[in-house]
Amino acid sequence: MFGLENLPFGAAEGRLWVRYGDGALDLRAAAARGEVDERLAEPTLNAFLAGGRPLWTSTRAKLRTLRFEDLTPVDELTMTLPFEVADYVDFYSSEQHALNASKIFRPDAPDLSPNWKHLPIGYHGRAGTIVVSGTDIVRPNGQWLDADRQPAFGPSRRLDVECEVGFVVGVPSDGPIATSAFREHVFGVVLLNDWSARDIQGWETVPLGPFLGKSFATSTSSWVVPLDALEAARITAPTQEPPVLPYLRDDRTGYDLRLELRRNGDVLSRPPFKKMYWTAAQQLAHMTVNGAKARTGDLYASGTVSGETREEFGSLLELNWNGAYLDDGDTVTISATAPGPDGSVIALGEVAGTVRPAR
Amino acid sequence: MFGLENLPFGAAEGRLWVRYGDGALDLRAAAARGEVDERLAEPTLNAFLAGGRPLWTSTRAKLRTLRFEDLTPVDELTMTLPFEVADYVDFYSSEQHALNASKIFRPDAPDLSPNWKHLPIGYHGRAGTIVVSGTDIVRPNGQWLDADRQPAFGPSRRLDVECEVGFVVGVPSDGPIATSAFREHVFGVVLLNDWSARDIQGWETVPLGPFLGKSFATSTSSWVVPLDALEAARITAPTQEPPVLPYLRDDRTGYDLRLELRRNGDVLSRPPFKKMYWTAAQQLAHMTVNGAKARTGDLYASGTVSGETREEFGSLLELNWNGAYLDDGDTVTISATAPGPDGSVIALGEVAGTVRPAR
Repeated sequence: MFGLENLPFGAAEGRLWVRYGDGALDLRAAAARGEVDERLAEPTLNAFLAGGRPLWTSTRAKLRTLRFEDLTPVDELTMTLPFEVADYVDFYSSEQHALNASKIFRPDAPDLSPNWKHLPIGYHGRAGTIVVSGTDIVRPNGQWLDADRQPAFGPSRRLDVECEVGFVVGVPSDGPIATSAFREHVFGVVLLNDWSARDIQGWETVPLGPFLGKSFATSTSSWVVPLDALEAARITAPTQEPPVLPYLRDDRTGYDLRLELRRNGDVLSRPPFKKMYWTAAQQLAHMTVNGAKARTGDLYASGTVSGETREEFGSLLELNWNGAYLDDGDTVTISATAPGPDGSVIALGEVAGTVRPAR
Repeated sequence: MFGLENLPFGAAEGRLWVRYGDGALDLRAAAARGEVDERLAEPTLNAFLAGGRPLWTSTRAKLRTLRFEDLTPVDELTMTLPFEVADYVDFYSSEQHALNASKIFRPDAPDLSPNWKHLPIGYHGRAGTIVVSGTDIVRPNGQWLDADRQPAFGPSRRLDVECEVGFVVGVPSDGPIATSAFREHVFGVVLLNDWSARDIQGWETVPLGPFLGKSFATSTSSWVVPLDALEAARITAPTQEPPVLPYLRDDRTGYDLRLELRRNGDVLSRPPFKKMYWTAAQQLAHMTVNGAKARTGDLYASGTVSGETREEFGSLLELNWNGAYLDDGDTVTISATAPGPDGSVIALGEVAGTVRPAR
């Protein structure tokens, strides 16, 4: 799960670490010994991310030659955000999730909005409220409609989760990033829980989209798994019909990430990332095609991962069909595995959070 | 216009400056002489912004005692972004603009969305593509519907401007900021042009809001005017009916900023900021009421400022009723003045940009 085929990066105690098994290697110390590039002596991954694929690849090769001795047990580390987030974008790229959301929120509208199969729908989120796995989630206060459809203020009564996969941009760009350049710019992946207050979101969202219903907290996993660790997990993403415009054409590389959503230890579902309609390469190409800059530390997420059956739904909205949501004290955990080389299994760490009462 | 009653801050040549008349005082040099706080020796305003109102007030008092000699002509300075932008939020707080946009975009819907008078509608924008006044604006490519309502890709044919006022957060917060605490957290104001590609925006915007239609560029003025310079410009903002929920109640302080929108030197309109329905204090309170962190360098904008008559409309969408938009080569300039003490006039600098052909 965390063998030499994985080697994800994290941050704790003001320095960077690479995980091996249940332990972690202090990269500042390794850099001081000359074993790894000095950009890994920084407190966050940003300088390393900006270094680009040649640095990522050579570092990975070096790390695999090290003896992983004198490791610090990961249980003893208080993990922090592994990189400084620049801009955060959240997509909406699971066809089944979009269908479910349409049926629940817009029962009179077509199943998918007319644009959905032509471009990866997304929106900007709040970079400043991204938190690392393990951070408590305080139930947000906000404005929503009461039983009489009157605006009211108080703790959200429909606090939800969204099982997602996030992609971390390393190499910046001042202009469009072609789908074929995805691997030159994106370093790795995290798991992400896009906590959502459905009542706040529902009331505020027309016409400019989600805002306070999402911006109170977004959790990411502590460990960033390099794309290089997911070579054996590459699969062919779903065929797109109708065909997409040329700037969105790609080689259909998807990733067979097998997510698991747990509430207080009970498995709620196993969302399949391999079924996502829009790929991460398409998302990045779309996001930058208008000339928007990409910066080191940009994070973009897939949107809720949901498959066709209830066992594959990635939110309580869908699992309980807008019926029941999180209680105070609930702990939600998203984990994932992926096929590794030679029959091994790559773990993506986990993203966990416990709901605390509103202030 | 830029007398002792104004004293806005800007950045150029890797250091900070305070403007006086047509010249600017080098604050790094002033800090080296011990005349101002050393946080003004930094290359951007962020450390000074984080210092909070006591620092802002004492610095302003000190600056007003200096002899403004050996100034650098502002024409000789290449201005850069005066602060590092953390999160960027754009509101939609002009009632007339919202009415006009509804009539044009949603002719079959009610004039205002049902939520509009209950909360300040807003969305997160892309912090990484905020640029300083003077930066060329490359016409964005993107996806839009052609005459046959089929998706097509190419340069936007409906490139627009939005006249806005932006507020710069200095003091961070881990939780809600009450409307009464506005002045403890917000340092000053900028003018802002939220360039908008109406064709891209129109096609992408349902259901998650504006994304690529806005994220290619947002321009801000070079000079940040302290709130302290706008004391004489305070007016009573419009009465709100129906009454707002308690967390949004405020003292109705608005600002009499008189904007002017020019295209190639011709005045198109004079949008009146004093008519904004939602105040900057309400926007900040709403934005953080769910527990969202505020960070030093957060920038939030008012949304297009429009008054009741065509002469007061703040976008071409409204001025030409979705008819004609910007041509390549057009230079758009937004400037503003405000009443200062004792009959003086405060200038807010300007935000300008020239449209370049799509790449």
